[in-house]
Amino acid sequence: MTSTLAKLSDTLGDIVSVSTADLEAARADKSGHVSDAAPLAVVHARSIDDVQRTMRYATETGTPVVTRGAGTGLAGGAIAGAGEIVLSTIGMNRILEISRDDELAVVQPGVINADLNTALEPSGLWFAPDPASRAISTIGGNIATNAGGLLCAKYGVTRESVLGVKVVLADGRLMEFGHRTVKGVTGLDLAGLMIGSEGTLGVIVEATVKVQALPQGIASTIGAWFASVEDAARAAAVITATGIRPAIMELLDPNAMASIADHLGLDVRPGQSFLLVQTDGHGASVGAENALAVIRSLGGDAEHTTDPAESARLFGMRRAFHPAMEARGTVLIEDVCVPRSALPAMFNAITAIAGKHGVDIATVAHAGDGNLHPNFVFQGVDVPAAVWAAADELFLTALRLGGTLTGEHGVGLLKKRWLGEELGSEQLELQRSIKGVFDPQGLLNRGKVF
Amino acid sequence: MTSTLAKLSDTLGDIVSVSTADLEAARADKSGHVSDAAPLAVVHARSIDDVQRTMRYATETGTPVVTRGAGTGLAGGAIAGAGEIVLSTIGMNRILEISRDDELAVVQPGVINADLNTALEPSGLWFAPDPASRAISTIGGNIATNAGGLLCAKYGVTRESVLGVKVVLADGRLMEFGHRTVKGVTGLDLAGLMIGSEGTLGVIVEATVKVQALPQGIASTIGAWFASVEDAARAAAVITATGIRPAIMELLDPNAMASIADHLGLDVRPGQSFLLVQTDGHGASVGAENALAVIRSLGGDAEHTTDPAESARLFGMRRAFHPAMEARGTVLIEDVCVPRSALPAMFNAITAIAGKHGVDIATVAHAGDGNLHPNFVFQGVDVPAAVWAAADELFLTALRLGGTLTGEHGVGLLKKRWLGEELGSEQLELQRSIKGVFDPQGLLNRGKVF
Repeated sequence: MTSTLAKLSDTLGDIVSVSTADLEAARADKSGHVSDAAPLAVVHARSIDDVQRTMRYATETGTPVVTRGAGTGLAGGAIAGAGEIVLSTIGMNRILEISRDDELAVVQPGVINADLNTALEPSGLWFAPDPASRAISTIGGNIATNAGGLLCAKYGVTRESVLGVKVVLADGRLMEFGHRTVKGVTGLDLAGLMIGSEGTLGVIVEATVKVQALPQGIASTIGAWFASVEDAARAAAVITATGIRPAIMELLDPNAMASIADHLGLDVRPGQSFLLVQTDGHGASVGAENALAVIRSLGGDAEHTTDPAESARLFGMRRAFHPAMEARGTVLIEDVCVPRSALPAMFNAITAIAGKHGVDIATVAHAGDGNLHPNFVFQGVDVPAAVWAAADELFLTALRLGGTLTGEHGVGLLKKRWLGEELGSEQLELQRSIKGVFDPQGLLNRGKVF
Repeated sequence: MTSTLAKLSDTLGDIVSVSTADLEAARADKSGHVSDAAPLAVVHARSIDDVQRTMRYATETGTPVVTRGAGTGLAGGAIAGAGEIVLSTIGMNRILEISRDDELAVVQPGVINADLNTALEPSGLWFAPDPASRAISTIGGNIATNAGGLLCAKYGVTRESVLGVKVVLADGRLMEFGHRTVKGVTGLDLAGLMIGSEGTLGVIVEATVKVQALPQGIASTIGAWFASVEDAARAAAVITATGIRPAIMELLDPNAMASIADHLGLDVRPGQSFLLVQTDGHGASVGAENALAVIRSLGGDAEHTTDPAESARLFGMRRAFHPAMEARGTVLIEDVCVPRSALPAMFNAITAIAGKHGVDIATVAHAGDGNLHPNFVFQGVDVPAAVWAAADELFLTALRLGGTLTGEHGVGLLKKRWLGEELGSEQLELQRSIKGVFDPQGLLNRGKVF
């Protein structure tokens, strides 16, 4: 191991770090999972050439590599362990081009999502993918996980905002996938294949992303209270089914709301669920009026505002969810997605599963997408067996309802054991064979996803 | 060959046709290209099981297979020749489900695009991908080519409207790729990989597609005349760059307009270009006002209407383009796409190339996408060498401007010889290796694309 390290430093020079802080940081992400041992070294890449040299070295020596951005993942996809090189692209953080004319930006992978938006704002533009982590997560990580977030029902997931990527393969070769144009059908869509591939196929070293004009008009915000989470879920499903397309539609279940009320010192009636709806663009006011009608017809008690301060107050409750959870104990954030019509059934199932296994689950949902985040709260650092048993039942329920194991966080390490349940063994094998084309030695994110 | 055929008929029964009409039809598509010889047989698949049995037979006997829908392709992708089985999915034309609640439809591959829209209309829904061939092309073919069309700048290409696909692999195994949910990140995006793969990876036997509420509000239509095609192209580029997002923006160059005027008996001043803009949704009227301001500031002479009859008259000119071309001779329809800011340069280059090679080119562009269709007109059935020379120069110009060889028609047979220019030999090899994973014997659409 020491000789491998010496050779790595010889090859790459002072971008190789073995500082305890760097090595320890690379053992974890935001999932709560920590690897069994520290990795071999962290390579702080500053250029495409650094990445290519690292991958050539890895291929020559058969050393596994874990690509890592800001380490904000929630599925363990960027966690590294014994004998692995961590290839950090966080230092490749330059915005190379912003084109208002072509509504695109060219960025290095380590650019923080929010930093791109700050740079775009003077041109009246924005980059739509908005994972709740936008202040801390990188565009490279957003692409690697096909990140979702709060705005997907109207503005799409990351995949819809990527035109092309430059990728370094396991053997160090540089490839350009995709187009600078908004359309293009030359050969297989390998840019699309890279999106959501969680570091298993190559290292994203540059991306050409779609940007768009900031929404016009005055946004409308609705905060609605429901006595039953099923009714709140039904209202969310009906809003979409009647053709309203909110920019944001978030649902907090009674357990989530009680925690938030505690945390913020609010007076909320027990058992209440909260539905937060924001419409934007030229149809904002019509959309809000229609959504209000749906909400009230289903028993919701709603307020409606176009005042930014009042809107911020309503959003403040949603934003307090994660701090409120963390104040209560250790949190395992889960992520399933169901067809929107199955939202009420999924919420009911979560309540039943929590009761059956005696576990504490508070759920927030990106209700416009049918994407639920059940948060399991427990004490101590180890995930109790009952939590895994409940999670297992929850995943299988999502699949039974026509849904998926993960709407936006990815598979990484944490969902690997359930992947076969969704894909089946034959598709899993096909996916492994495709990985084999890109990375025949299996060096990239070994042991993740597949 | 005869024994192969006998065995095929033994295996598959009366869905195997060797009628001259069937065999001759399968030699051509709408590209004008015709294969050298008739294929072995046409299998009229009626079910997934038929497709699986055909592919198992093909794998056992090493017989190449060309999947074919309505045969409306423009790149020769569904053309079959000597020794090949044509697997027709046009008879698999049932709409299996329409869900208003989940905004999706489940369809067999042979469903005609317009038929799906007719079925959706009573629910106030539509399927957005609108290739100009929607009345005659199938959803399966739309997916296989990632079809574009008139509405892409605002509503996306086919890729953005597909959630999942069922696919029969070369060896007859049935796979399900993608999700019924709007989000989902379990493993590699193989549904995405199938979209635009032109029949080279598998046979699409079912698709779950996104549908959406019909646009609200009253559409606004603008017809604008420009004395210079460069100014018309600039107006189109500026409309997008200022954040207006028309549903449709079509540009007809002077040669196209002159042909249309002849064909329809209209009085159009020589040298005039025509820009057709339609805005829809709640922002339709604001968008149209802003577009008008851009057009007039760039020298356009514009009329603006919300009257459906007047709008139909303006669209009638665009719709007359292809009949007008066909009235003039044999037509080779080309398809390049450039960044929108390069539209003026690309139009200028086309004019120069037409002059240099002495060929007749009339161009229509989906200007909101930067997607141009230069139509080469000539007499007789064989494409003259000068036309290929001009096309060659035109493709390389599009690439030089940051564009692509094909925005929406695909590679098929006709663009195969230029694919390496865009992708490079290493990526081409990578793409071939991925095909090898799906189809190790190279049976599916042999000799196409790669």
